[in-house]
Amino acid sequence: MTFTDLSIATNATILPINEIADKAGIPRQALELYGNYKAKINVDSLPPATKLGQVVLVTAISPTPAGEGKSTVTVGLADAFNQLNESVIVALREPSLGPVMGVKGGATGGGFAQVLPMEDINLHFTGDIHAITSANNALAALIDNHLHQGNALNIDPRRIAWKRALDINDRALRQITIGLGGPLQGVPRQDGFDITVASEIMAVLCLATTLKDLKERLAQMVIAYTYDKEPITVRQLAVEGALTLLLKDAFKPNLVQTIEGTPAIIHGGPFANIAHGCNSLLATNTARRLADIVITEAGFGADLGAEKFMHIKSRKGNFHPDAVVIVATIRALKMHGGVEKTELTHPNASAVKRGMANLEKHVHTIRQFGIEPVIALNRFITDENEELEEVMNWALQHGVQIALTHVWENGGKGGLELAKLVKQELAKPKNFTMLYDETDSVEEKLRIIVQQVYGGSGIHLSDKAKKKLVELKKYGWDALPICMAKTQYSLSDQPALYGRPEGFTITIRDIIPKLGAGFLVCLTGDIMTMPGLPKQPAALKMDIDDDGNAVGLF
Amino acid sequence: MTFTDLSIATNATILPINEIADKAGIPRQALELYGNYKAKINVDSLPPATKLGQVVLVTAISPTPAGEGKSTVTVGLADAFNQLNESVIVALREPSLGPVMGVKGGATGGGFAQVLPMEDINLHFTGDIHAITSANNALAALIDNHLHQGNALNIDPRRIAWKRALDINDRALRQITIGLGGPLQGVPRQDGFDITVASEIMAVLCLATTLKDLKERLAQMVIAYTYDKEPITVRQLAVEGALTLLLKDAFKPNLVQTIEGTPAIIHGGPFANIAHGCNSLLATNTARRLADIVITEAGFGADLGAEKFMHIKSRKGNFHPDAVVIVATIRALKMHGGVEKTELTHPNASAVKRGMANLEKHVHTIRQFGIEPVIALNRFITDENEELEEVMNWALQHGVQIALTHVWENGGKGGLELAKLVKQELAKPKNFTMLYDETDSVEEKLRIIVQQVYGGSGIHLSDKAKKKLVELKKYGWDALPICMAKTQYSLSDQPALYGRPEGFTITIRDIIPKLGAGFLVCLTGDIMTMPGLPKQPAALKMDIDDDGNAVGLF
Repeated sequence: MTFTDLSIATNATILPINEIADKAGIPRQALELYGNYKAKINVDSLPPATKLGQVVLVTAISPTPAGEGKSTVTVGLADAFNQLNESVIVALREPSLGPVMGVKGGATGGGFAQVLPMEDINLHFTGDIHAITSANNALAALIDNHLHQGNALNIDPRRIAWKRALDINDRALRQITIGLGGPLQGVPRQDGFDITVASEIMAVLCLATTLKDLKERLAQMVIAYTYDKEPITVRQLAVEGALTLLLKDAFKPNLVQTIEGTPAIIHGGPFANIAHGCNSLLATNTARRLADIVITEAGFGADLGAEKFMHIKSRKGNFHPDAVVIVATIRALKMHGGVEKTELTHPNASAVKRGMANLEKHVHTIRQFGIEPVIALNRFITDENEELEEVMNWALQHGVQIALTHVWENGGKGGLELAKLVKQELAKPKNFTMLYDETDSVEEKLRIIVQQVYGGSGIHLSDKAKKKLVELKKYGWDALPICMAKTQYSLSDQPALYGRPEGFTITIRDIIPKLGAGFLVCLTGDIMTMPGLPKQPAALKMDIDDDGNAVGLF
Repeated sequence: MTFTDLSIATNATILPINEIADKAGIPRQALELYGNYKAKINVDSLPPATKLGQVVLVTAISPTPAGEGKSTVTVGLADAFNQLNESVIVALREPSLGPVMGVKGGATGGGFAQVLPMEDINLHFTGDIHAITSANNALAALIDNHLHQGNALNIDPRRIAWKRALDINDRALRQITIGLGGPLQGVPRQDGFDITVASEIMAVLCLATTLKDLKERLAQMVIAYTYDKEPITVRQLAVEGALTLLLKDAFKPNLVQTIEGTPAIIHGGPFANIAHGCNSLLATNTARRLADIVITEAGFGADLGAEKFMHIKSRKGNFHPDAVVIVATIRALKMHGGVEKTELTHPNASAVKRGMANLEKHVHTIRQFGIEPVIALNRFITDENEELEEVMNWALQHGVQIALTHVWENGGKGGLELAKLVKQELAKPKNFTMLYDETDSVEEKLRIIVQQVYGGSGIHLSDKAKKKLVELKKYGWDALPICMAKTQYSLSDQPALYGRPEGFTITIRDIIPKLGAGFLVCLTGDIMTMPGLPKQPAALKMDIDDDGNAVGLF
């Protein structure tokens, strides 16, 4: 038989979640079971924290269509620590059903480095994303109902900042008109749907520390502007209580396990382009209360995911990563070196060498934060020795720590070398530093990100962005961290510029205050907040077999 | 303190769901826990059925804004049987979140005749409706993607029969245009959202008997017509497997409990106007395997809910109710007798007498099916003795069995008298008869429903309906039961005609084949498939308290 992620997952031994909870030190009364293999954690029922575990952030080079296996390495690294008898928990994002039905087919690691039960996690899991969809669209309906019922708040229907959301890839919903059909059917206006993980509510849920904090953040969200261009928040609509009620269970972190029985907390999954792209702060904090070492990941490459992890999530959580792993593959390095995806099977060490420029920049970026990164070179069966040596030699020459991983085939065993290097790094004192302060001007914060993280020369603000800056200052909204919305494929804002482009400027098209999440989204280029389905969606292969088991998730 | 449904529910003693499962004879391996107080039942893991319990259908007079308390009586009657030490399970519909956020605030019975945990059941419960929303909208996205990716099936974008759905009251989504913004954003067309419980997938889930049957029914759904006006089904799009996969957990019935610890199975909730309005056939069948007596309800009055329960659900399930309860209240009878809602507090025995005409027709209807109904006169504290006597005397004169219930205040104890009458009825032999055969012509089936159930004189078919009849015959779709979509407020198709109108004809505007559900929806008047929010939505009062408990559900 051929191994697929689903066949490996289905044939794996899965332990009752009670046993995983015991291993993680979660008392029974803090556990709400969802079937035998999933549970929500009632954080308030956990024993008081005596100490907090260290955090290992797994990030990557700029992603390419060749794939890097970042989640797979994250899971495999946790399993490696588990094999070393360390107290470890892996904290991951929840997969979005849209991409699962579209191209991904699944997003829970791969091979023998997966989380279980993979079919549940990839489908509805414990309903968190559905609850966010409900809250998002309840708010939208309440806004349109307010317009329809007399519009006491004087909301300008042309200036509504709140979009609807579905956890689906559906390009036809990107731009729509609603409220058609006459006076009984609401107020006609332009609208659109984002994918749910792009909803500000997802970002809010992932940055809130308590239910009370969640409610306060929801209340602060800007949903519209009046005819006088004054902002309207959820608080003025008085529905933050209802939204919080809809989210009260979704706010609890979910406990599952890896194939090797390592405890895994999977909770929250904001988009990594329009939002900050890491699992919930509450999940990370909970994992730190329970384990000595927490392995977690951030979306896309280090320019987006790691930068936001440091400047947004770590800042809000008042912690910093104690070690950073950068995942790279020969295949992706070759693409950064100019090779087409169709040519990746041909050995090409010189392309690998050229592509190293991208990895080099991300190493440089992490070092600026005061952390010495460890590279995980994630092996594929097609990698040639001379290609691997190109990377190993570069690392030797530049004094960069590197380990080969082969966790897809071997699980934790394939990550032991990486774990040993990371462990050494965890033992060293850190001199963590943010690259910018929240109180720096918006232009200064943007300049620092572009120059120090992307390696560009500077920024260009569109007229619209300049007008927004005036508004931000007027309302005192400018002292917030930046959440860059940039293509993940390039360090620049041009998706086709692979490798390590230089001398580019980044154009800031627009700045959108997300006061609930507590950051300023700065839009560059065309950022997709509602994906489309491909010509042959993954859904076409999905099915159930005669015993009711999942087919076609991979 | 004043009692609210939520305060009573919160202060009630709730048993671990394992204990309820033990009481119902559900083995542990057939149980999938969702927290401590909810579980899904793995029907395939139940012991083989040795005998099937009897079914008590609870229906009502034509509903009025005064409220009848049908769900409350259903729960209270089950609790009464439980007090009599009968083996009993109550089988109910799942509440839709849309109306809960809109006007209802909650839909799980009331007072001391409720199901628990009411706040979970009224919010996301076990995610069934969210899964249906996902499947509904995945199908919609796959249809629009098919149009966008070359339209190999030659679908006419003006003739797409599949709408999107959300479990929310949102009038602004009733009529929309999608796919705007140019060639990369899909194909522009008119569309609209229904509330999820109006989705054909909800009806399919509620009438399927196995996962395989569910998949086959999904495959049969007609989603569009070609430019040549030929029907296109889900099977041609080849996504019935993916849809079934999305629904595999939603298809499992949910076990909860009443305040008095009676086992309750709550599963499925199709709209009672556009669909058939009862909980899932699988839930009813499961309850019958486990208990001697199953108490269940159907939506709206007996003209809609009970008629469809007999002709659609019972027919598909190859069973019939063994007793029927018709719920009435003095308040509602007064409204049928011509009293305005604002005047209901004034005693008015003559209005009660006039309003009895409505109840009398529903008694007549149930008798035609070969079942002798029992009336539950659901007491309110404001009822006057002379008003109650009006009804009791009428029942005596007409030989109709009647019991006063006061289950809101007293739980099962308030339903003991009703339970005793129902038990007598269950012991009698039945001569159940359907009023029409599936193979009767569509016109004949419609005529029988209108004349025998509604008491009207006949039907009028619009030109559109006549054209549809030709299509139904062409494709052999005419041998299906009818699912009338009619106002619930009147026996006629005019909502304002209370009481027992006579001599009216029913106009059939359109006929929509629902081949997955297996019925023909016949539209009369304006049928709302996406409700709107009121000026002061129930959501405004919803909140969490400092301990994270629900506030504002009632």
